[in-house]
Amino acid sequence: MKQAVTTAPETNTTRAAKIIARCRELARITDTPGKTQRLFLSPATRDAHTLLTWWIRQAGLEARTDDAGNLRAVRRSAKDDAPMLVLFSHIDTVPNAGAFDGPLGVLLALAAIEQLHSTPIPFHIELIAFAEEEGARFSFPFLSSMAVTGQLTDELLAKTDADGISVADAIRSFGLDPTRIPESCPLAKNTFAALEVHIEQGPVLEADNASLAVVEAIVGQSRLKLTFEGHANHAGTTPMPLRHDALAAAAQWIVEIERYAANYTQLVATVGRIEALPGAMNVVPGTALVTLDVRHPKDESRHAAVAHLLTKAEAAGAVRGVKVQATLLSEQKAVPMNHDLTVKLHQAAERTGHDAKSMFSGAGHDSMILAPVVPTTMLFVRSPGGLSHHPDEAVREEDVEAALATVLNLLLHLHPHK
Amino acid sequence: MKQAVTTAPETNTTRAAKIIARCRELARITDTPGKTQRLFLSPATRDAHTLLTWWIRQAGLEARTDDAGNLRAVRRSAKDDAPMLVLFSHIDTVPNAGAFDGPLGVLLALAAIEQLHSTPIPFHIELIAFAEEEGARFSFPFLSSMAVTGQLTDELLAKTDADGISVADAIRSFGLDPTRIPESCPLAKNTFAALEVHIEQGPVLEADNASLAVVEAIVGQSRLKLTFEGHANHAGTTPMPLRHDALAAAAQWIVEIERYAANYTQLVATVGRIEALPGAMNVVPGTALVTLDVRHPKDESRHAAVAHLLTKAEAAGAVRGVKVQATLLSEQKAVPMNHDLTVKLHQAAERTGHDAKSMFSGAGHDSMILAPVVPTTMLFVRSPGGLSHHPDEAVREEDVEAALATVLNLLLHLHPHK
Repeated sequence: MKQAVTTAPETNTTRAAKIIARCRELARITDTPGKTQRLFLSPATRDAHTLLTWWIRQAGLEARTDDAGNLRAVRRSAKDDAPMLVLFSHIDTVPNAGAFDGPLGVLLALAAIEQLHSTPIPFHIELIAFAEEEGARFSFPFLSSMAVTGQLTDELLAKTDADGISVADAIRSFGLDPTRIPESCPLAKNTFAALEVHIEQGPVLEADNASLAVVEAIVGQSRLKLTFEGHANHAGTTPMPLRHDALAAAAQWIVEIERYAANYTQLVATVGRIEALPGAMNVVPGTALVTLDVRHPKDESRHAAVAHLLTKAEAAGAVRGVKVQATLLSEQKAVPMNHDLTVKLHQAAERTGHDAKSMFSGAGHDSMILAPVVPTTMLFVRSPGGLSHHPDEAVREEDVEAALATVLNLLLHLHPHK
Repeated sequence: MKQAVTTAPETNTTRAAKIIARCRELARITDTPGKTQRLFLSPATRDAHTLLTWWIRQAGLEARTDDAGNLRAVRRSAKDDAPMLVLFSHIDTVPNAGAFDGPLGVLLALAAIEQLHSTPIPFHIELIAFAEEEGARFSFPFLSSMAVTGQLTDELLAKTDADGISVADAIRSFGLDPTRIPESCPLAKNTFAALEVHIEQGPVLEADNASLAVVEAIVGQSRLKLTFEGHANHAGTTPMPLRHDALAAAAQWIVEIERYAANYTQLVATVGRIEALPGAMNVVPGTALVTLDVRHPKDESRHAAVAHLLTKAEAAGAVRGVKVQATLLSEQKAVPMNHDLTVKLHQAAERTGHDAKSMFSGAGHDSMILAPVVPTTMLFVRSPGGLSHHPDEAVREEDVEAALATVLNLLLHLHPHK
């Protein structure tokens, strides 16, 4: 086993505990005292960079900040022209965040580099701590991964935050130069693989009593808005058979959505918002406004689900004399992870004694942006309670150890040209 | 036929057309230019009183305003100690009202008195134009009918409007004296009957192709607020079987309410308000807030319906791990109309060639306040399109004529001591 060459002095328990401790230490660096919040290019981002740079130096590497604000460090292979593997995740957070969504992937990657120590491997490893993934500051996510894949357009650089500051101005205020993004940001040309470790942010691994999952694909998503239009009538004077109750039609539809999606293991469909108008206790609702969010790892299945559910909405309206109008708000295609890397990640987990599940990611991640450009795979770590975007967000030490062992094993078995 | 003694010069068509024309003229007297709105004791109320007083004088009567702001006029019988019959409805309106909800009853009563002309009948007739029924100014309805039945308490007189003005102060500003209410307001001691003509405000008569209905009872009402409490989860990462979707539970319940109420002809049940929290498109709702309005002419049936629907709510929650909490906001008992008067009103309609339906009123009316104190009955006139509380509120001339003929016939056949 090549793992035997690992020379780090720590036990398996303490190396996972150290990753968790570092995540919690990073969580204390915040824009909002008492809570964890690190917006893109905020003062807390600078402090986080200072701490990360210190840890990276302790691992024997030098850190640099690219002109999109990403902190990067390369562990060089003996051969200068060796290809590049990228380990990445993000360090920005939502408001009132937990400690692990993003930072776990960054600090586990750094731990893996520490654990490799001087073990020779036939490729360079770049660690990238993305500065923007959540979309919390500019109401637009994935700006960092778009910067390293050449997609950070002038239009995106002109987007403004709540204070009217543009992305480009925020970059300049951070002491960087947005015009240099095309030079300082792109991934190395000979990058042959990219790997993100991330908490699951859902309840599946916990329900399955499993530590890890390899992500097969990031699901596609359709978002719709529906208007059910009946007639508002007096709740006392209008007998049931003479009503055109828009809310009753919408309610029947919501039940049918739930029933339909439950029949397909990979489909999720959610009504997150509803409004009944005029919205008085004693008036039969004349209008109901409803949103629908549909996700599936196969685009054709998602399209079929949306089409089926729209016919169900019309049927629920028709029996009540209620008209239905649907508007597609947004659509995102499913993004498959690299098959070869996914298989290798599974094998690495197996070799370290872990049975990683196969999963689809129902949430978006930077891996979604990188995958079309470079072979990318993703490893999920169990989220206790399925909790995320919440101060109580957690990870188990045994799961972090499993993830670290799996990543290390992959690094030790990966051959760029096989 | 005693109707032959009627000496009014108008044809049957024009006397109904005149009532309608007067309602529309009154509708032009408003607190809000361009719309019809007459709040209790507003400047428009004073102008309405001036016009009504003029019309009452034309009918040969004198009008007075009691100290709760009600305009009243008595047509005296030959015998001074004759008993009293009251014809009443209201002249206040909701904001942006139609012309007939209230005024039709007042102006049809005045027309009936005009049509009687000098025909001797064995009782006095008091016309009362109530100044407050809708509850629009003080968020509390029926203040006028409570004043004439001795229920306008100091607590109610202290209620304030949006500008902080109390009922008592509003009465004083109108030039009246709230301390004199106990003397100037009560119904005459020997009142033996009270009759209100009102538009149906619903679609039942139109659906049945009928002009009139005699109201058997005003329904009882229960209002509840329910909280469905599940768990908010990520719409992408939470598979359907692991959800505790509060909105899905509420939706199932709304469909069951509709299905259950449709099985009982006299039951109406309405969910008029709904809110899903946190209310984001991509979050499974953790909480759903829903209102329920249940009405039935029999109190025990209403109680049974509420109890049944609450078990259905709990069941809809239980299958999803969603807890349900219900709060009773208000409850109103059903109020039967006087049986003897109701029969006589049916007979009067029949004698004039009209087949009045029997109906329950699903909305509250002043008759509800008078009925426990004095024998009361109510006549509904068809509402085209079931429309009310809307500028397009209307009546048909043929229906108004049917109502007037029925009321006149009742007055000519009624014997106080039979």
